Parts: sequence; structure tokens; C-alpha cells
Amino acid sequence: MASPDIGRIAVTGAAGFVGRAVVARLRQDGIETVAIDRLPGDGILAGDLSDSAFRREALANTKATIHLAAVPGGAAEADYALSRRINLDLTLALMEEAQGRFIYASSIAVFGAPSPEPIDDHTPPRPALTYGAHKLMSEVALANLKRLGRLDGIALRLPGIVARPRAASGLKSAFMSDVFHALAAGEAITLPVSPQATMWMLSAQAVAEALIQAVTVRDAPAVLTLPALRVGMGELVAALGGAGKVSYVPDAALEAQFGAYPPLSTPAADRLGFRHDGDLATLVRRALP
Amino acid sequence: MASPDIGRIAVTGAAGFVGRAVVARLRQDGIETVAIDRLPGDGILAGDLSDSAFRREALANTKATIHLAAVPGGAAEADYALSRRINLDLTLALMEEAQGRFIYASSIAVFGAPSPEPIDDHTPPRPALTYGAHKLMSEVALANLKRLGRLDGIALRLPGIVARPRAASGLKSAFMSDVFHALAAGEAITLPVSPQATMWMLSAQAVAEALIQAVTVRDAPAVLTLPALRVGMGELVAALGGAGKVSYVPDAALEAQFGAYPPLSTPAADRLGFRHDGDLATLVRRALP
Repeated sequence: MASPDIGRIAVTGAAGFVGRAVVARLRQDGIETVAIDRLPGDGILAGDLSDSAFRREALANTKATIHLAAVPGGAAEADYALSRRINLDLTLALMEEAQGRFIYASSIAVFGAPSPEPIDDHTPPRPALTYGAHKLMSEVALANLKRLGRLDGIALRLPGIVARPRAASGLKSAFMSDVFHALAAGEAITLPVSPQATMWMLSAQAVAEALIQAVTVRDAPAVLTLPALRVGMGELVAALGGAGKVSYVPDAALEAQFGAYPPLSTPAADRLGFRHDGDLATLVRRALP
Repeated sequence: MASPDIGRIAVTGAAGFVGRAVVARLRQDGIETVAIDRLPGDGILAGDLSDSAFRREALANTKATIHLAAVPGGAAEADYALSRRINLDLTLALMEEAQGRFIYASSIAVFGAPSPEPIDDHTPPRPALTYGAHKLMSEVALANLKRLGRLDGIALRLPGIVARPRAASGLKSAFMSDVFHALAAGEAITLPVSPQATMWMLSAQAVAEALIQAVTVRDAPAVLTLPALRVGMGELVAALGGAGKVSYVPDAALEAQFGAYPPLSTPAADRLGFRHDGDLATLVRRALP
């Protein structure tokens, strides 16, 4: 999809679930990639991006940055100062210093606990967690820097990405991924939402494609909500063949926040060629490669 | 209006136009007031609030802070780094450290260049200047800190406050105040908007009352758009008795940004008892005390 002539690309949060998918895809496409993470790993440039000297060095001579590094929702809610430092201050520093194209992974968390009305490109954001508040503040900053001509940037709002690894991810929405792993392994699982819960989902493959497509997309608004498949928990469980293995013990607050996503329309992203996984069977197949 | 038992109140930007009106009103009501400004002056505690030691000292033992200090729109647009430091970073530091009630002077600049549709409490903000972007980011931060129970805060969106002193204020909307001074002095003036231009205005007296009322208001949302009188430039010129003294040389961009304010409704603020000046005659009388 992306061509090698787009130049050297930096990916932050490269050891994370989405980061690994993005880096793998970029390298597969022959694109020189600086994979940056605070944790060392294979093919990873390890360091603290909050350190401006490391930041300058790591991003030198890159043509684009895909900024995924973030403190996830649950962890951000538990540690405001950490979210402020990583989800806001680091993001602002990267945007203010960026020399090339800047792709920012925002989140549907900017919408907060969704109301029943359909969400579209005009729905006002109303974050309900520190994570979503800092994502929204970063979106506003990005749009302004773009308007000023100081940043060639775009923010993509990511839906629930599945299936994240099982280990504690700091995400309050971990059940969305855990259900894939448990049922694929033939295990029983207790879900904190009802079968009627609805979620917006995207596979790691689809989100990696979207993030890479954003490097070269033109004439796009500063902020785009990515298309996502709206999935009901009951139909997901059925598609995973796990009807007999699941107990539903809904937590009302959690279901209101993560399991009550209304119909979504994303005309701006659709027009630019961004796509979700298409159907549930494809999502399920891609979610557990 | 406010009673002395609300405790010691800090006012930032106290030497500014709105700050002077707020401090005068507080002291007149017998309320102990710490009037803080970066510039020394009568009754002013002068210092740099970006210096955390000064900030702690200046705000010690205060029960509320009315945060007015800001780099105005034109100056913020010309110096992004300065706006980042004062309009965003300082505001965030004050909110994160606040011990008591926190009243934040936001701005209708969060709406950007307004579209013709009426604006109400549900209109999504869409800032068109760095000033408005940093005000909006601060509103989002305030709402989140309030939700977390870390801040007893409220943001009031201020309309055009008249009549500011003539000297260069760094405000792109200076013409709104200049017209008062020129016509009161019997001078001719050239206006950069047409007689059809519409603006939202509030006198310094009315905005001081609103800011002080916000110290004790209860059960309010985190962000309120203040009521304002919607004034047409032609009717304002007539009310000022200056029909023969005015030349209109509209600047289309400036009129789109500052002279095309649609009808405004502010039910949330109205319900809580916030009021604009009532009518044009009262606004004019109060604007040039």
C-alpha cells in the first residue's frame, strides 16, 4: 500500500499492539522505519521520548511520525500526572517539533460515554475520562498547528482494536479482546457487559493500514473518526462459536461507557478511502491471526 | 453581590481591563483580594505566575482564584510559544494546583469565525486562532479535573468586553472598543467592519459581576457561555450619536471573524442567574463610566 519513496518513518509506541502491526507492515513494504518504544525489544530503538535530546536524535531525518505512544485509559485514569506527561505534554512536544508528516492516534474516547444518538463527523466530543480529555486537547492543538502551517498533521480517532494480547493492558475495555482469546482457546469467560452491548471494532491489520494510508492522504481534515464495524456482543460470541462458554454479568457503568456505542457514520474518512474490516467474519479472522 | 465570608480571593491579570473591574468590585464588597499581575501597580502583587514559587506564595490561603491573565488574541496569534506558555501551560498549572474555587475566563473565541446558525449551549466549539485553541484546551482540562474531583472549577466564556482602553491591547477586535472612545470624544473613526456587523458585547461591570457570581454559584456545568447583548454596528454608532463621524471600510476577513456573530442563546447561564447588560442604552452608559 505505502511505497518506499515516502521516506524514513518513525513510529512511537512501536512495541505496543498497534505499533507492532504498523512497524511490521511498513517494513514489509520496504519502508525504512525507526521503531521507538520506552521498552527495549527486537528492532526497537529504546528510550524516553520525554527526554528532548533522545527525541531529537530518534526523529532525526524522518519524513513522518506515527505517534502511538500513550498511557492507556485505565492507567491514565489512575495516574493523572502520568497521563498529563505522556498523553498531553509529550504529544504537544512532538507536534510542535515535527519536521515532516505527523499522524496522531487519537481515540473514540473523545466521545466519552456515548449517548444513544448516532455519531457522525459533526458529533461534539465530550470525553468522560482523563485519557479522552488529553486526546481531545491534543486534537485541538493539532488542528491549530495545522491551521498555522506549522504542522502537516492529521489525527485519526481509533475505535476498539482487537484482539489485544490478554495480559493487563491498562485498558478498561480489555473484555473486548479477552473474549476473542478465551473463546478461541475453548475457555469459559465471564463478560462485564450484556449480549446487547454494542462496540466499534477494528482489527490491528485494518488500523495499521489506516495509519499508513494517513501518511500520504491529501486534502483531509485535521481530525478524522475512522470507520469501524459496529459489533453486538451476542453476535460476536456466536461468530466465535462460544455461545455455551459465556456468562454475562453486566457492570452497568462499564456497559454504558464501553458497550453502548450507537450507529457510527464516518463520511469524511470514507470519502478518503479509509475502510473498516467489512464484516464480522473478516474481523474475527483478522483479530486472531 | 458577593459577601465577605467567601474568603480571600486571588485575581490574576488584575491590572488588565477586566481585572481592574473585578478587583474594584471585590474590594468594594469588602472581600480581601490578592490582585496579581506581571506589571507592578497600585494595590498589585507583581510577579511571574509561571514561576512556581511565586505562584504558591501568591495563592497561599486563598479560597478562590479568578484567572484572567492571558495573552490576547492578536498577540497569541503572533507568538505561538508565548500563548502556549501563558494561555495553556500556566492555566493548566493553576488548575492542577488550585486548592479552592477556580473561575477561568474562557472566551467566545472557542467558536472561531462563527457560522450564520444561532449559537447555543450545544454548539461545538471550533477555534480559528491559537488564542481560541488554547482556551478550548483549557476548558477541556478544567472539565476533566472537575469530573475527577480535583478541581472545584468553572469556565465562563466571555464575549467582547467594552470599552477597553484605546491603547494597543493586542486584540484583533479592538475596533469594538475604539468606536466608543472615538465617538464619545467627538472624533471621526474608520471602522474595519460594515454597519451590518453584529457583535456580542458585555460591559466590564456586567462581566465583573458574572465572574464574582461564579465564585459562589452551585450546580453549574464546567463550562458556561455567558449571556451577551448582540449589537449591530450601525445601531451602536447611532446609540453613540456618531452617525456622521464614521467611515466604514470593511475588512472581509475581520468582519467574518469578529463582526458576524449570529443570535446567541445561553439557557444554562440564564438559569443560573447570569445576565448581560439588558439593553443597548445601558451597555453604552456602562461602557464609558
